[in-house]
Amino acid sequence: MALIVHKYGGTSMGSTERIRNVARRVAKWHDAGHQIVVVPSAMSGETNRLLGLAKEITGTPAPRELDMLASTGEQASVALLAIALQAIGKDAVSYTGWQVPVITDNAYTKARIQSIDDAKVRKDLEAGRIVIITGFQGIDGDGNITTLGRGGSDTSAVAVAAALKAAECLIYTDVDGVYTTDPRVVSDARRLKTVTFEEMLEMASLGSKVLQIRSVEFAGNYRVPTRVLSSLTDPLMSLEEEASSGTLISFEEDTHMEQATITGIAFSRDEAKITVMGVPDKPGIAYQILGPVADANVEVDMIIQNQSVEGKTDFTFTVPRGDYEKALNLINDSVKNKLGAGNVIGDAKVSKVSVVGVGMRSHVGIASQMFRTLSEESINIQMISTSEIKISVLIDEKYMELAVRALHKAFGLEQG
Amino acid sequence: MALIVHKYGGTSMGSTERIRNVARRVAKWHDAGHQIVVVPSAMSGETNRLLGLAKEITGTPAPRELDMLASTGEQASVALLAIALQAIGKDAVSYTGWQVPVITDNAYTKARIQSIDDAKVRKDLEAGRIVIITGFQGIDGDGNITTLGRGGSDTSAVAVAAALKAAECLIYTDVDGVYTTDPRVVSDARRLKTVTFEEMLEMASLGSKVLQIRSVEFAGNYRVPTRVLSSLTDPLMSLEEEASSGTLISFEEDTHMEQATITGIAFSRDEAKITVMGVPDKPGIAYQILGPVADANVEVDMIIQNQSVEGKTDFTFTVPRGDYEKALNLINDSVKNKLGAGNVIGDAKVSKVSVVGVGMRSHVGIASQMFRTLSEESINIQMISTSEIKISVLIDEKYMELAVRALHKAFGLEQG
Repeated sequence: MALIVHKYGGTSMGSTERIRNVARRVAKWHDAGHQIVVVPSAMSGETNRLLGLAKEITGTPAPRELDMLASTGEQASVALLAIALQAIGKDAVSYTGWQVPVITDNAYTKARIQSIDDAKVRKDLEAGRIVIITGFQGIDGDGNITTLGRGGSDTSAVAVAAALKAAECLIYTDVDGVYTTDPRVVSDARRLKTVTFEEMLEMASLGSKVLQIRSVEFAGNYRVPTRVLSSLTDPLMSLEEEASSGTLISFEEDTHMEQATITGIAFSRDEAKITVMGVPDKPGIAYQILGPVADANVEVDMIIQNQSVEGKTDFTFTVPRGDYEKALNLINDSVKNKLGAGNVIGDAKVSKVSVVGVGMRSHVGIASQMFRTLSEESINIQMISTSEIKISVLIDEKYMELAVRALHKAFGLEQG
Repeated sequence: MALIVHKYGGTSMGSTERIRNVARRVAKWHDAGHQIVVVPSAMSGETNRLLGLAKEITGTPAPRELDMLASTGEQASVALLAIALQAIGKDAVSYTGWQVPVITDNAYTKARIQSIDDAKVRKDLEAGRIVIITGFQGIDGDGNITTLGRGGSDTSAVAVAAALKAAECLIYTDVDGVYTTDPRVVSDARRLKTVTFEEMLEMASLGSKVLQIRSVEFAGNYRVPTRVLSSLTDPLMSLEEEASSGTLISFEEDTHMEQATITGIAFSRDEAKITVMGVPDKPGIAYQILGPVADANVEVDMIIQNQSVEGKTDFTFTVPRGDYEKALNLINDSVKNKLGAGNVIGDAKVSKVSVVGVGMRSHVGIASQMFRTLSEESINIQMISTSEIKISVLIDEKYMELAVRALHKAFGLEQG
């Protein structure tokens, strides 16, 4: 018998028929003798409907009231799931974030969890009850309702699992796990049985958006074994099979060392790069260029400053493609002349491809194998950025899929 | 400057455009220097939508979970109204029942308010804020969400007004006040400027369903001046005009004494009567007949037992027409033989007409004027029931409208 936390996304909760399926699946786990806590999202579309009403009234609703509004979606969900469990003979009880309570800071619409009181939940679990807790929300020190931001229910589930020291946190979603790369790009992409938290962070931030990134950080910090698995399977499939399906995000690196050095190929199609040429090479240049960009809420990813020649250097950075025009205008209008820089050039048709793997730490030659593979396909590398467990390159977007396929093959990722 | 509570029904909150109108109206009162607390209902249709989801899952959802579910409708409403007020430059804050808190007993789906903590609300009002509180709901001693049942937002508003000792509680609704009788029946029915709580109770329970009856009881018990007025007027109409519109439900009988003895004619079309003939006249008969009817959740209204003749009597009672067959079968199947009674006869085509007025207490002759008027129209009276401030008669339903019109005229109700 173990204490297990289940999390179901909005699609899984999208209709009363689907909620009944969630109830059947949860009941199966409970029947097997486990203590179960469930964290469901709002029914799909509900959060958008609610925020849409606010937007009909004003473009700038107060964050406190948005949280008051949006949190109702998850509250309705927990009640409906409790009703569905009771309808099949299970003793179940639902709680909102404030009832547990889940204490957060007061950063409305993007609050962070500070603590979770487990007393009430433990008492229910010991009495044999299935406990259902609203995702996405909590309460601040002054009794105001807060929400954790989009996808926050993943974080709620992992945080609840951490507070209860759960054996595992199962995130049921509409994909069946984390893959070596996007199966839509590489048909023989392989589902990973395990990834480490660090790899998952790199995979998530690079576009494999299976889990909200904050939930992965949370799982890593509190060492919560977290499994991503499909909610589209038969809810009555064998529990043994279900328990080992999907991808386990693990904090045990050792199990990984024996395996391949590279875990997956991540990519981000919609990048853009901007180069400021002939920048005087003196202290504070990076800040003077990127400060105004950050102030405009544009996220900068890769940054390169070349070796200077005769006191001048070229400075290049990448931004999401949607922010390209905005960033380019900013540099042209308010940075270029102030710095006495030369031309500003840009390219909005670039993509980023990364190889990710904790094995990289103890193996040399990953970078050279990556560069050789791209070279064999005559793909020019425009920028390079590295971290402990990944190497990213920026390339012309028209070669992106070719690069991903070639790298997937070169690192033998199609083999288990 | 006064402290005023506004209550808006689901129709008034039915769309974001209507919510904006509510905000304009509330802002107008606040601009005039008043302290304003608003209790809005859920957007029209929302409570039914939520309960419909529960019903799709099971016919017998647990009341605790129904309250968890249904209470989200009002929570969304308060947030949207706060957003609408802020959008026009007003400082406003929304609270759920548990945030105030509004403490109730734990009778889920039909909880009763036990106390309201006014500290937080007063602090906001003193800071110049408009306070918006969810109707319909509270929290029990164990921190569970409770609801007050259908129409409970009226009761919430009056209870909040009582707790804050508000100068007046304004119930904005889709009728413009309480009338001497239904204007659809009598075209020159007149809007009453004031009624007493007792009269309002009789008018409400007899079919003039303007206000939830519990809210009227609450207003009476706590002596909260409560005004029913239209939410369909121009939100920017003059405040003086609006403040004296509608009907004031008052606890000052004196103002009334000078006026007409009769306040209004109430009626209930869909009644049915059942007579058990030849019942042995001995103690316990009424209980033996009506006990099984009450156990079947059928509400009994008028009850008459005739003078017995040779140890036998006839026993007649009325029930809502929808419960007629059920009650008739019950009497025939399980009461008649046990009592050794004679025939059981019934009539499902009867209506009840009542004259209501506190003035009746100090004036004789109301009953005789009522009976004479009906007699002049050749309307046969089948049953009579009286209370301190009303006289009700049961008549053939085909004469109901004629009776209401004749009585309205006979008591001069068309004159102010």
